[in-house]
Amino acid sequence: MIRIVGLVAAALLATTSCASAQPNLILTGEGVEAFREAGALPPLMQRALDAATRRVEASIQAGPIVPEPVDPGGGYSHERHKENYKIIHDAGLLFQLTGERRYLEHAETYLLAYADMYGDLPLHPERRNQAPGRLFWQSLNEAVWLVYSIQGYDAIRAELSDASRDRIEAALFRPMAEFLSTESPQTFQRIHNHGTWAAAAVGMTGYALDDPALVERALFGLELDGEAGFLAQLDQLFSPDGYYTEGPYYQRYALMPFVLFGQAVQNNEPERGIFEHRDGILLEAILSTIHQSYAGRFFPINDAIREKGLDTVEVVYGVAAAYSLTGDTGLLSIADQQGATVLTGDGLAVATDLDAGMASPFAFDTRLLRDGPDGNQGGLAILRMGAGELAQTLVAKHTGQGMGHGHFDKLSLILYDGGQEILTDYGAARFLNVPSKDGGRYLPENSSWARQTIAHNTVVLNETSHHGGDWRRAQESWPSIALFEQRDGVNVVSASISDAYPDATLTRTTFQLQSENTASPLILDVFDVVADEPSQIDLPTYFAGQLTDFDIAFERFGSQQTALGAGNGYQHLWVEAQSEIAADRARFTWLTENRFYTYHALVSEPFEARIVRTGANDPDFNLRTQQGILLRVPSAESARFISVFEPHGRYDPAQEITVASESGIDEIRSVEGETATLIQIVFNSGQRLSVGLAHDLHAGAHTINADGHRYEWTGAYNIFGE
Amino acid sequence: MIRIVGLVAAALLATTSCASAQPNLILTGEGVEAFREAGALPPLMQRALDAATRRVEASIQAGPIVPEPVDPGGGYSHERHKENYKIIHDAGLLFQLTGERRYLEHAETYLLAYADMYGDLPLHPERRNQAPGRLFWQSLNEAVWLVYSIQGYDAIRAELSDASRDRIEAALFRPMAEFLSTESPQTFQRIHNHGTWAAAAVGMTGYALDDPALVERALFGLELDGEAGFLAQLDQLFSPDGYYTEGPYYQRYALMPFVLFGQAVQNNEPERGIFEHRDGILLEAILSTIHQSYAGRFFPINDAIREKGLDTVEVVYGVAAAYSLTGDTGLLSIADQQGATVLTGDGLAVATDLDAGMASPFAFDTRLLRDGPDGNQGGLAILRMGAGELAQTLVAKHTGQGMGHGHFDKLSLILYDGGQEILTDYGAARFLNVPSKDGGRYLPENSSWARQTIAHNTVVLNETSHHGGDWRRAQESWPSIALFEQRDGVNVVSASISDAYPDATLTRTTFQLQSENTASPLILDVFDVVADEPSQIDLPTYFAGQLTDFDIAFERFGSQQTALGAGNGYQHLWVEAQSEIAADRARFTWLTENRFYTYHALVSEPFEARIVRTGANDPDFNLRTQQGILLRVPSAESARFISVFEPHGRYDPAQEITVASESGIDEIRSVEGETATLIQIVFNSGQRLSVGLAHDLHAGAHTINADGHRYEWTGAYNIFGE
Repeated sequence: MIRIVGLVAAALLATTSCASAQPNLILTGEGVEAFREAGALPPLMQRALDAATRRVEASIQAGPIVPEPVDPGGGYSHERHKENYKIIHDAGLLFQLTGERRYLEHAETYLLAYADMYGDLPLHPERRNQAPGRLFWQSLNEAVWLVYSIQGYDAIRAELSDASRDRIEAALFRPMAEFLSTESPQTFQRIHNHGTWAAAAVGMTGYALDDPALVERALFGLELDGEAGFLAQLDQLFSPDGYYTEGPYYQRYALMPFVLFGQAVQNNEPERGIFEHRDGILLEAILSTIHQSYAGRFFPINDAIREKGLDTVEVVYGVAAAYSLTGDTGLLSIADQQGATVLTGDGLAVATDLDAGMASPFAFDTRLLRDGPDGNQGGLAILRMGAGELAQTLVAKHTGQGMGHGHFDKLSLILYDGGQEILTDYGAARFLNVPSKDGGRYLPENSSWARQTIAHNTVVLNETSHHGGDWRRAQESWPSIALFEQRDGVNVVSASISDAYPDATLTRTTFQLQSENTASPLILDVFDVVADEPSQIDLPTYFAGQLTDFDIAFERFGSQQTALGAGNGYQHLWVEAQSEIAADRARFTWLTENRFYTYHALVSEPFEARIVRTGANDPDFNLRTQQGILLRVPSAESARFISVFEPHGRYDPAQEITVASESGIDEIRSVEGETATLIQIVFNSGQRLSVGLAHDLHAGAHTINADGHRYEWTGAYNIFGE
Repeated sequence: MIRIVGLVAAALLATTSCASAQPNLILTGEGVEAFREAGALPPLMQRALDAATRRVEASIQAGPIVPEPVDPGGGYSHERHKENYKIIHDAGLLFQLTGERRYLEHAETYLLAYADMYGDLPLHPERRNQAPGRLFWQSLNEAVWLVYSIQGYDAIRAELSDASRDRIEAALFRPMAEFLSTESPQTFQRIHNHGTWAAAAVGMTGYALDDPALVERALFGLELDGEAGFLAQLDQLFSPDGYYTEGPYYQRYALMPFVLFGQAVQNNEPERGIFEHRDGILLEAILSTIHQSYAGRFFPINDAIREKGLDTVEVVYGVAAAYSLTGDTGLLSIADQQGATVLTGDGLAVATDLDAGMASPFAFDTRLLRDGPDGNQGGLAILRMGAGELAQTLVAKHTGQGMGHGHFDKLSLILYDGGQEILTDYGAARFLNVPSKDGGRYLPENSSWARQTIAHNTVVLNETSHHGGDWRRAQESWPSIALFEQRDGVNVVSASISDAYPDATLTRTTFQLQSENTASPLILDVFDVVADEPSQIDLPTYFAGQLTDFDIAFERFGSQQTALGAGNGYQHLWVEAQSEIAADRARFTWLTENRFYTYHALVSEPFEARIVRTGANDPDFNLRTQQGILLRVPSAESARFISVFEPHGRYDPAQEITVASESGIDEIRSVEGETATLIQIVFNSGQRLSVGLAHDLHAGAHTINADGHRYEWTGAYNIFGE
């Protein structure tokens, strides 16, 4: 599965025979050699080199600036120390790539300045949580600082005087490595991305300082027993499919130390076979990160900042490493989107091959990323249908909780189509590093709204969140995925969970269906709720777009509107409109960019519809505005929500062309049989698409008579085109 | 000023000696020759040719489809007849460019089918206004149909049999030209864009049918007295600066018949000197359309569909014509953005020169586009500062009313910065051609909200709109522009109007100031209100972005919120938060994309602040959501609002970098002198920017003492950097 090509292979051979040659962390001696041989650099690499040169030259001009660490995230000293690790990193690498000693001297000057300061630093005055740093408010930032700076140091160490080397190691790197490991056991021993950063920082320092004890500690934990440390992190944080339990936003962040320390281990001790560990889990982790994106942005599940995507530096490093391992030219098109690469031999190979026109489309596909160390804790189902990277993509969140950053939205959906997010996930309530927004931390509304079930496209019973909104309790539970199949023109996933609520089972079966009657594939979603007691059952659907039509009689709240509820996120929704009890169906059409979407709802019980919008009880204007359609069954022991999402038409105001702005579906019918249900989608054209779905996905033979036709099939489901 | 180059010059010479050779409307014989000589076509032209070929080949495959005209805009028959004129147009041109007779035959078949139908057509069943069509619900659409179809006919006419030619002209083109002129005098004689379309259609038909009487009628009106017709339209609809009184959205639309008929006149009767008419007003009109845009979209003043921009077909024609007239290579970069050109000799020149790398940046600049036929009815001030097409751009709407599509927002502002609209204009409430949205017409909320003064960034007195919301009354009035200057690092415009309200004068003076203390230029805006009676004075500021900070104590409406008022647009605003009376100042910071903006308000009278949002009393969800800050002086005879808009910092969540998210301004001060005011902006850095502004812009000498300094200047204003 893993093919070692090009520079890494060369590095592997070389380092075996000459383990102590420096640099040898990420930029290696062989990488430097490749740069020397390359002559004119390809554009992507020239850009990387120019950026580093600009940063370091400006810093040389300004002289070193090492302020007292006083500010929290986003504040001056915080941002300055972040900038400094990039300067130290870049200056070291520039020294290697250009041979100019002024770059070495600048990195040295900075490191000596930090050596003068670090020993006396108390814990940071703005510390807030249980893992304080000294240079920064969180030890996490300190580990990141070390991961970058040690690379710069690795690149100049061989050329330093003994005095400088001793001073920098004794007063800065060794104390910092001890601070991050023996003095911060609660972080270092934790199986969590903060622990990975600490392990990477300490282990890379071990290689750079030629101190095997630090490397062992990083790999196996403080007790050297393998219960903690890098390998335990690799084994426990990723599922066999490379899914990181907190979701793609944190996966991206966690990826960096895995990739960097992994490469450092490979370059220094290839005999450890780190990239073969657990069937190549490191590579799987990189690739699955890329798969969890649409139009360059990550799926915003859990506590995600929605702007994060494939252009983040972590993925830039990941692409370079993965390309070196696989030679997969699909990665070059990701690098092209990123418009960036890293100043290493791997980065040079990416830039060179991209410049040579070797890029091919990245193979985004339909896949289930199982969750949990053993892959048996649910999973993230990604259904894609259509051509290219903007093919319609449905994300079904059938994963485990994802620890403290997990949201309480079992079985929720996100839908992308035509380059847009159509059914949306709110992501996190947070403005990263903006001091006026609670110092850039997660806002109170992250807990009161974004994490609550009602903020997501899934069912809420009795106005309470899944697992009572208790992540530790949720952590013990996950959906079971009964069906995941990809066939010609059909993708389907079905999952259920029986303990999101005590005494209730939720089951969701979602089809993505090719259809010649719609602008892009059709989504058919069947959500079953079975409870022991009569319950209020809510199904919200948040959409991006402008309502253009609906067929239900609403009372529209014109001059006064009120919040939907009092807690569990309901307090944050304004009720913009409310219907009387409807018999069984409703439909809503909205416009998103240049395409219309009609949501057809068929509900087994009488229900009310509401149009809701975020913004209530939000004293500091922390929430983004987000509109949704809420269907409510006031009281029932069970209910089935059949939803069809139909993409149709085209709206092009620039060309003044609007076609098919009205739904092309006449009717949705549901016919119950003894062992199965038949759902019929009847188009205006007279064509029908019928989906047979067996009760409990029972695999036997099923027969349903409807409209004088006899529908027969064997198996959990079948699609009938007519 | 006008340089005639290349193909048009050749065409001019040729047509003089051979006036009746066809084609000779827009695509000319010389254009056809240029295509033949070109060999391989440049990419932009190849794309245009491919698109036309695809359209026509598909139509040949399908056969002619000429449905009975029954549907309104957006409906099937409406869209079909629109598609058909493109097919007829393209098929004719393709015949000329390829010589293939099947294209001729397809155009001929279509035209004969229309000839069979047209004579018996009654007025359209869905007619709504006073200018009904027969093929379409509006005669406007019928004129457009003719403008396109006659070009296709012009391209095949010489090759038709006498029978076909006679039939098509007698049963289709002549009746249609009569219907649009003698039978629709209320439109044909009107000085309005509908009249221009009718004139172009009739005049171009005159040239194609070699009927000088139709041309004369088109140029001079039904009475041939020059009181109506194309030349009267040219003289009265554009100001001397090429501004069209309805604003850029309608200017774009109006441009098409001006450009096309103008070119047809030039090609057939160059001796009329149509492009020299009125100092080259046709070219000015094209260029000023381009100038009224930012990031490719038109300034959305008046009844504008916000999506419309430079890529619309009208501007594609305009660019080709203007490039032919001027050879200005800045136009090639506009063509590059458009990614399109027209199937004519002019279009070929654009595509060829673009492909040859001759494009240069279009020279967007600071300019005042005076309004009114004589340029004395106010104007649109465009202030630009910074490099490139995304330079900060402030638009001050100091124009006349702009007829029935004008909004009641005298002296309103729009601000663009960093590629984004920062201070926004709502544009029109309309979803073009969406049947479920009132058939795609202007929605009721266009009158009740979008046209009202409160929907714009300008002052409202006593909750009533300017000119009482009566456009005919407003049409008689306009602001007077007392000052418009561009100096190094300073742009300024000042205007006032004394009859937007009876017995009140509004004066607005707006500076765009270069500043090293901000991320991009600073806006300083001084709005003075002087009324005879104590009035309630509101100044709303609509912004695109997320509030991140404010320094005023708000009561935030958490669980219940109400509409701001009962009429004149106030009924459509929810009050999200309200402050107590504030003494004199407030500030608000928001985040738009990657930059922060702080709005500093200094008000001469005690005021309340409200945060408002559109959406109240909107039964059909016709409004987009739009947030604003409303400052209200409850009762005063006069008030001065000093506003500073400060762009600052950077928010880059992908790179996790946030800097300067808080304002860099310590304080705004206003010091009154005897003859002038001194406004001081004091930055955190200690630097100051002081602006002296003479009362009534009095040009004499002024002295103000402030902070132990003595500020002296002569003239209406002065800028002091310290």
